[in-house]
Amino acid sequence: MSDISLIDRKPDVLSEKCPSRRVLNHVTSRWGVLVLIALQDGTHRFSNLRRRIGGVSERMLAQTLRVLEEDGFIQRTAYPVVPPHVEYDLTPLGQTVAEKVHALAACIEDNLGQILATQDA
Amino acid sequence: MSDISLIDRKPDVLSEKCPSRRVLNHVTSRWGVLVLIALQDGTHRFSNLRRRIGGVSERMLAQTLRVLEEDGFIQRTAYPVVPPHVEYDLTPLGQTVAEKVHALAACIEDNLGQILATQDA
Repeated sequence: MSDISLIDRKPDVLSEKCPSRRVLNHVTSRWGVLVLIALQDGTHRFSNLRRRIGGVSERMLAQTLRVLEEDGFIQRTAYPVVPPHVEYDLTPLGQTVAEKVHALAACIEDNLGQILATQDA
Repeated sequence: MSDISLIDRKPDVLSEKCPSRRVLNHVTSRWGVLVLIALQDGTHRFSNLRRRIGGVSERMLAQTLRVLEEDGFIQRTAYPVVPPHVEYDLTPLGQTVAEKVHALAACIEDNLGQILATQDA
């Protein structure tokens, strides 16, 4: 409830106490960024996401998906079958956020040559 | 040099070995995001940046600025005066990246009410 009261003020990530900063940390986390990008092209199962995101551990992927689901960026659908079948999708808000994250990643990818040359200089 | 050879392939942050992922980690780091946003409105001195970015320590701010300078996103200018006078600016590439980071943060700020309501549900 204290979180809600804070948004009577205009949210500002530069302010230490603003809850927007915590959410920003979720979507810019090491694996959060990559999960959002990987889900942009549609529904994925856990094992498929793990293959797409090079280097992610089972534990970190599960934790990242849970946090992004709690924020409302990811929809988790569990089908009542044996063995369990669970699918992950972006919500409409998640799609909007994923587009911003993707634009940032694409900007880095597109300018990588210049960046690596600067690092070497 | 091994980094440079990797960019013969199209950069892809989902690939564990692609150097674009390391750079993406710099600009999406806890403080990297906020430094880029804080520098968007122009030149800042260290002490001024530290005041603008709530909660950042001297050590973390210095380290973040150094990494972003090495990538070519930030220009550091030291004037040969006593006491030392050092200024930080975004480079043209840094400005481009900062705009993407800012768009992401603004998206979170604009939807914070919905996100907090989802967290509470």
